[in-house]
Amino acid sequence: MAIQVNKQLMDKGQVGAMIEWLASFGQEENGGVTRLLYSPAWQDAQHALNKFMEEMNLTTYFDSVGNLFGRLQGTDSKGKTILTGSHIDTVVEGGKYDGAYGIIASLIAVIRLYNQYGYPKKTIEVVSLCEEEGSRFPLTFWGSRNITGVYNLDHVKNVQDANGISFLEAMMHAGFDPGKYTSPARKDIERFVEIHIEQGMVMEKNQNQIGLVSHIVGQRRYTIHIKGESNHAGTTPMYFRKDAVSTACYLISFLTEKTKELDPSLVATVGKLTVKPNVPNVIAGEVEFSLDIRHHEERIIDQYCHEIFAEFKRTLESLKMEVSISQWMDVKPVMMDIQMRNLAREAAEGKNMRYQEIISGAGHDAQVFGKACPTSLLFVPSRNGISHSPDEFTHGEDLEIGIDLLTEVLYKLAY
Amino acid sequence: MAIQVNKQLMDKGQVGAMIEWLASFGQEENGGVTRLLYSPAWQDAQHALNKFMEEMNLTTYFDSVGNLFGRLQGTDSKGKTILTGSHIDTVVEGGKYDGAYGIIASLIAVIRLYNQYGYPKKTIEVVSLCEEEGSRFPLTFWGSRNITGVYNLDHVKNVQDANGISFLEAMMHAGFDPGKYTSPARKDIERFVEIHIEQGMVMEKNQNQIGLVSHIVGQRRYTIHIKGESNHAGTTPMYFRKDAVSTACYLISFLTEKTKELDPSLVATVGKLTVKPNVPNVIAGEVEFSLDIRHHEERIIDQYCHEIFAEFKRTLESLKMEVSISQWMDVKPVMMDIQMRNLAREAAEGKNMRYQEIISGAGHDAQVFGKACPTSLLFVPSRNGISHSPDEFTHGEDLEIGIDLLTEVLYKLAY
Repeated sequence: MAIQVNKQLMDKGQVGAMIEWLASFGQEENGGVTRLLYSPAWQDAQHALNKFMEEMNLTTYFDSVGNLFGRLQGTDSKGKTILTGSHIDTVVEGGKYDGAYGIIASLIAVIRLYNQYGYPKKTIEVVSLCEEEGSRFPLTFWGSRNITGVYNLDHVKNVQDANGISFLEAMMHAGFDPGKYTSPARKDIERFVEIHIEQGMVMEKNQNQIGLVSHIVGQRRYTIHIKGESNHAGTTPMYFRKDAVSTACYLISFLTEKTKELDPSLVATVGKLTVKPNVPNVIAGEVEFSLDIRHHEERIIDQYCHEIFAEFKRTLESLKMEVSISQWMDVKPVMMDIQMRNLAREAAEGKNMRYQEIISGAGHDAQVFGKACPTSLLFVPSRNGISHSPDEFTHGEDLEIGIDLLTEVLYKLAY
Repeated sequence: MAIQVNKQLMDKGQVGAMIEWLASFGQEENGGVTRLLYSPAWQDAQHALNKFMEEMNLTTYFDSVGNLFGRLQGTDSKGKTILTGSHIDTVVEGGKYDGAYGIIASLIAVIRLYNQYGYPKKTIEVVSLCEEEGSRFPLTFWGSRNITGVYNLDHVKNVQDANGISFLEAMMHAGFDPGKYTSPARKDIERFVEIHIEQGMVMEKNQNQIGLVSHIVGQRRYTIHIKGESNHAGTTPMYFRKDAVSTACYLISFLTEKTKELDPSLVATVGKLTVKPNVPNVIAGEVEFSLDIRHHEERIIDQYCHEIFAEFKRTLESLKMEVSISQWMDVKPVMMDIQMRNLAREAAEGKNMRYQEIISGAGHDAQVFGKACPTSLLFVPSRNGISHSPDEFTHGEDLEIGIDLLTEVLYKLAY
């Protein structure tokens, strides 16, 4: 059966309308979008996408965890699939573009390709991945990790959301009966291409339209606890103090400066910090702070951690104070496929797009696929770098340029 | 009528029993003492002290705000009074010594003096001041500021405690009807002597028994608010950040180092610090912190504030971030009387006590009296410098040495 031509989707400017349409599922009063895994808004969005794909005469199906696929069958019988798409779930009061843009761009690209060139040699599937953010349940990449065979039901048996609803119960209510689970793991995925908003301000500052992601950073997260001595702010001379606040501040200044010395791509963030007893006229006895470290090379992260934690220990020992450093996240860096990046570069150059290589500082489904098959991640700019917010925005022309590039890349891969 | 000899009070070691007796009014399960102004525990303590003073045949009376006096009439008819004592109120779960020791030491000293020397030339009064800490109502020195004529009912008309009970209502319930208020202001106080625990660790570290306070520090307190930009911890390079945490940490490190450069007696404390949004993987957009600055010379505080706030503004301007600095306390330094200090020094030397001059970093009633009449403040050591805590402790022999010195000082002043 032939794919219906949807003239509207061929027109420039329609991507904005599609973004608004998808954002209507889970939209909040402040304009933010909340589409948590298996929630009613999530179900509505996946079923609406399914219907849209059917109307475009793509062959659609859900796998047993709720990933939605729209398939354009290839004429070549080798049985390999080019997969393209992104995730349908959002954070609480997130933006309209994060994940959603990648699904819509893939859909538009595939329909335009069919309209212009007919059936591809290699099968192309558009995927609306069920979960990436980890914003309902304390686990991430549930969609891509099922497709790549990394996760199965065992990984969620004891998982609950903040309201005490079990993962399996939520799955069941959304229409995916865990009792009928068959592994969504795929052996036929030859390549994966994801397009996403940058969620940073690098491309905007550089006035570039396209980001060719070379790496997705590795991430380590720590909790640092410093124990000094709570004391009277008036009667304790500076040289007798074991002040947890001033000591923590020294260490945070040190680790911030050290990133700049070591590598311009290295980032380290102390986003959370709590003080005890937290009273103006009492020297603080305890401070606890988070530390989030990201870089695309494991050896740089190793060297950085080695240097800062040595300084932490030296400092605390000299002050006769205690420090505990506990790690609670360790995600390795992933390199995107070089050949696919070159192919995308040629496509961008052919279309006179302003592009740059870029490192992704945020996690993406592409890092899960990147361990299983050659994978490409493409970025469009984010206004002011804002994401995970109702203020998330990308200009319509930038969205269109991204779709143009994705279309060309898929053409080169599948036709 | 002659004062009764209480042989027990003449014996060494009884001061400890008196401390425990007074601590029993308002004692908590953890050993801490909570005796808030006009509370039942406060009333019990003042009335028990009144009864004890009566049994010692001192002439007792309350003034109209609840300061309790025990008077030993002088034989000289000039009508001037030597006042000695401290405050009966405590912080929540405070120690047994803060304030209480000064009252008990004064009582014991006066009784011993009478027993040994009979009536003094000048009248001596022991005072149990009703309030110093500011721990129930948001005002301090209610007792001493009434006696020195600084405060009257107008200052508390609109004051409430944390439970919404008005100051005047609490006063009425404790037996001090505001309708019958007559000013407790005294014109006859010739000198004030207060003995107190140090609440710091300076004397303990120096192995001294007596502190002769030269100054009570001035205090300024500020709230500093820094506004940067909340952003993604992964996608925002270090050089694009307006990170409120790392900026605040730089400033706190700067202000801490600056105290050491400027003057060894200068102390600056950031005891309270809050971060927004306070999430590990989000660059903080806002930090608010307290700043408590103390020194005994106003010009040093001026210079310090000038230098650090200039650096605050320079730093925030260069980062294009905002800072607001608001002051909510300004207490001037007070010098204790030099002649009285010399008199106390001679007394300490005569008794071979290990003494030192010391600056009080905490506020005391002596700073209120110090503006009205020649005033002396004497310290005994605090174990580990701990105060405002159930762990507050001073060895019995140090308490006795303090009483010996106070007795000698009062003898020189009144006999």
